[in-house]
Amino acid sequence: GKLQCSAVDVKGPSSFISGKKFQLDDVLEAQQFDRDNLNAIFEVAREMERVEKKSPESQILKGYLMATLFYEPSTRTRLSFESAMKRLGGEVLTTENAREFSSAAKGETLEDTIRTVEGYSDIIVMRHFESGAAKRAALTAGIPVINAGDGPGQHPTQALLDMYTIQREIGRLDGINVGLVGDLANGRTVRSLAYLLARYKDVKIYFVSPDVVKMKDDIKDYLTSTGVEWKESTNLVEVASKCDVVYQTRIQRERFGERLDLYEAARGKYIVDKNILQAMQKHAVVLHPLPRLDEITVEVDDDPRAAYFRQAKNGLYIRMALLKLLLLGW
Amino acid sequence: GKLQCSAVDVKGPSSFISGKKFQLDDVLEAQQFDRDNLNAIFEVAREMERVEKKSPESQILKGYLMATLFYEPSTRTRLSFESAMKRLGGEVLTTENAREFSSAAKGETLEDTIRTVEGYSDIIVMRHFESGAAKRAALTAGIPVINAGDGPGQHPTQALLDMYTIQREIGRLDGINVGLVGDLANGRTVRSLAYLLARYKDVKIYFVSPDVVKMKDDIKDYLTSTGVEWKESTNLVEVASKCDVVYQTRIQRERFGERLDLYEAARGKYIVDKNILQAMQKHAVVLHPLPRLDEITVEVDDDPRAAYFRQAKNGLYIRMALLKLLLLGW
Amino acid sequence: GKLQCSAVDVKGPSSFISGKKFQLDDVLEAQQFDRDNLNAIFEVAREMERVEKKSPESQILKGYLMATLFYEPSTRTRLSFESAMKRLGGEVLTTENAREFSSAAKGETLEDTIRTVEGYSDIIVMRHFESGAAKRAALTAGIPVINAGDGPGQHPTQALLDMYTIQREIGRLDGINVGLVGDLANGRTVRSLAYLLARYKDVKIYFVSPDVVKMKDDIKDYLTSTGVEWKESTNLVEVASKCDVVYQTRIQRERFGERLDLYEAARGKYIVDKNILQAMQKHAVVLHPLPRLDEITVEVDDDPRAAYFRQAKNGLYIRMALLKLLLLGW
Repeated sequence: GKLQCSAVDVKGPSSFISGKKFQLDDVLEAQQFDRDNLNAIFEVAREMERVEKKSPESQILKGYLMATLFYEPSTRTRLSFESAMKRLGGEVLTTENAREFSSAAKGETLEDTIRTVEGYSDIIVMRHFESGAAKRAALTAGIPVINAGDGPGQHPTQALLDMYTIQREIGRLDGINVGLVGDLANGRTVRSLAYLLARYKDVKIYFVSPDVVKMKDDIKDYLTSTGVEWKESTNLVEVASKCDVVYQTRIQRERFGERLDLYEAARGKYIVDKNILQAMQKHAVVLHPLPRLDEITVEVDDDPRAAYFRQAKNGLYIRMALLKLLLLGW
Repeated sequence: GKLQCSAVDVKGPSSFISGKKFQLDDVLEAQQFDRDNLNAIFEVAREMERVEKKSPESQILKGYLMATLFYEPSTRTRLSFESAMKRLGGEVLTTENAREFSSAAKGETLEDTIRTVEGYSDIIVMRHFESGAAKRAALTAGIPVINAGDGPGQHPTQALLDMYTIQREIGRLDGINVGLVGDLANGRTVRSLAYLLARYKDVKIYFVSPDVVKMKDDIKDYLTSTGVEWKESTNLVEVASKCDVVYQTRIQRERFGERLDLYEAARGKYIVDKNILQAMQKHAVVLHPLPRLDEITVEVDDDPRAAYFRQAKNGLYIRMALLKLLLLGW
Repeated sequence: GKLQCSAVDVKGPSSFISGKKFQLDDVLEAQQFDRDNLNAIFEVAREMERVEKKSPESQILKGYLMATLFYEPSTRTRLSFESAMKRLGGEVLTTENAREFSSAAKGETLEDTIRTVEGYSDIIVMRHFESGAAKRAALTAGIPVINAGDGPGQHPTQALLDMYTIQREIGRLDGINVGLVGDLANGRTVRSLAYLLARYKDVKIYFVSPDVVKMKDDIKDYLTSTGVEWKESTNLVEVASKCDVVYQTRIQRERFGERLDLYEAARGKYIVDKNILQAMQKHAVVLHPLPRLDEITVEVDDDPRAAYFRQAKNGLYIRMALLKLLLLGW
């Protein structure tokens, strides 16, 4: 809704505390969240793990309608949100090809579409191909908007579930060592994650990536300015041995255009396999935002430190928590 | 269902009164409705505004299943119907690409498809690319069918929500002046609306449209024969100053084929902007079936007389009313 | 889930009896079922006919979530499953274009997709273009998997509803004469049906098909080895006069590639029309898996022996029964 967007402009810590309660109007970008409200959200997510288990009884969102307005398909994200809504007793209106809805097809503005859809639903989950689209939607809508990915921009619920997973698996967020591996240039996931990690104390980040997809300077500068120690490395085994979290990502073929030779070279460079597992500490975990190709070999799956499917499941709990918070409050 | 179609052939006033109660079997075309049953439907729609506000409690269609059988995409209309069903506690089976279902893909007849779908649901909402398809479906189905648009044919629920909006905004339907603006040749919306306006007394209609998309003679003749006064004009300011309702429509690019020069000329001719607002009376309203491009400028949106988003919302109430009436009766 | 697949390997009669109760973990292929568990399933399906009639009250699957994971579109099958789930109070997550989900689009394995989706739902209904895909899914999933068709492989719920329909219409499954007509080479339906018919005593099967699409030897050999009498015939009238069930199928144009002349010849060869009806006994029925083109003429529809739309409806009851059995047990 409209309130959040002005709140975003403030960008102070705990920008959505109101009185003694947090107030969450929209979920638009990772920068909205500081450690206080992250912790508060994680507590609600934890509660949701219990709610899901006895889901026939959980009906706190009964009578609420969520519209999933997807301008580009992302079945995984959509299913996760729709499952979250239904696990809480809510209902869903689905559009997976919202481009046909209006904008692209007939030239309607996003704002007009939002004004119509907000008349039919209580909350909008939007995926869009343009950066900033979720913010525009939130400025127009009188109901909450959740950004489920806006092009090269943000995918804040992914960042939240990544942080929640680290806390659940490692037990803390302060003082952790994190290896970010793979496509660090294009993956909005690792960029948002770096942002949120900077909220915590004594975090150390290692970047391990092929030269063509290295982490960009804006994030490096941001980390430096907030006092986060970071280092680039080409030695995945060494990094793995030092880290609590090895966060692997997919090299995205579509970013290489015609240069398939570069893609093939980048893709095979840093693989998480049995050797990497062997180097890793016993308590450490491997994460991945999924889908994965072969940047994590299948043999890793059976190791208890392979946490990526638990991570996907945590997406459900985080989204249940956000839906509850946006529709019912704390 | 089968009954309605014979009833349609009668075409007398109050054709679906049975005993002291109206009886509504299908919704197929605007001509089904006269002022008695229009008023009765509008009363139920008004009730639905109250029901929606406390929607967690409204479960009158719990256990009922609506199938949305869309042979061409129309996300806006589909969402409106699905929201209406779910706001009343009902459930939905969705097909947005029903062309693949059978007919086009494998050659099944519409009748066979309907016979299958009626086994899975309690009511069918159908969008089709062929005029008359909804009637054929109703003749086959043993359950109610709602026409959600059949090609160049009818879109009766749009006409109903237009009339409901005029009544809600202006307070009456007799004695009103209505300006129909834009593409009057191809828009089934304005054609159906003209039909329903003719049910009321002392209505005066002004047609304002580029020459290439003028209102066709059949509607003009119909209006004349039913005693409705109408006039063509090229002066939108003057018409706007006289009217209770300025009903703007989109010039449809797809109707012009290769002649984009004609489209561009037609499109810019009659725009509702601040100047038109200034000419309009204080109690008057601007309507539009949406989506709009720039035939209503964005600056108009904030004026209280801009009623088009309220009109879209009224579509929800009208569809809730129709679903209630078709499934539960009066 | 994982248990069923080992059970499938056993292939003994009543392979999913556990103690005194059947235990059904997945539905993957017709060969899973013997006469004991077929009869038991049919009893539950019969119960479902009663449940559907008072469906507002039937909420035994309330709180359960079914994911329909369709890698190729099949609206009819999807709607049937989704209706079944909703008629029992359950909820549905839909994907009709699951190819985009991952595998095809980004290269994710089916196994990874399943591991994610099982985190969001309680049961998976899967349609896939590759034979064996459902089994792979079941081996991975910790929740039940239903095969809703895997390419040229199996479509076991179709076979179950065919058998259920014969029992409901004819009153028995032992000692029946069945004519299988049309495309017997490519139709997985008739192949699965032959498998299940072989579970019963004194069944006699007549194959009536154009030369280019004759029943293949593997099924003939199987029938012979299990003591089922079968015969090929080119005289549909004679076969019709002897049979309890005339099971007509569509000649699938897509199987003929460029040879449209062969298709046209095959297609017109064996038509069920008034003449065939006249030859049939009074108690006999015509079945068809649908969609039909003109291999059954429309004039047949009104005859009480035309059972194909009742057969489609039985698909709902069989799927309700399977969902109940897989999620709640017997």
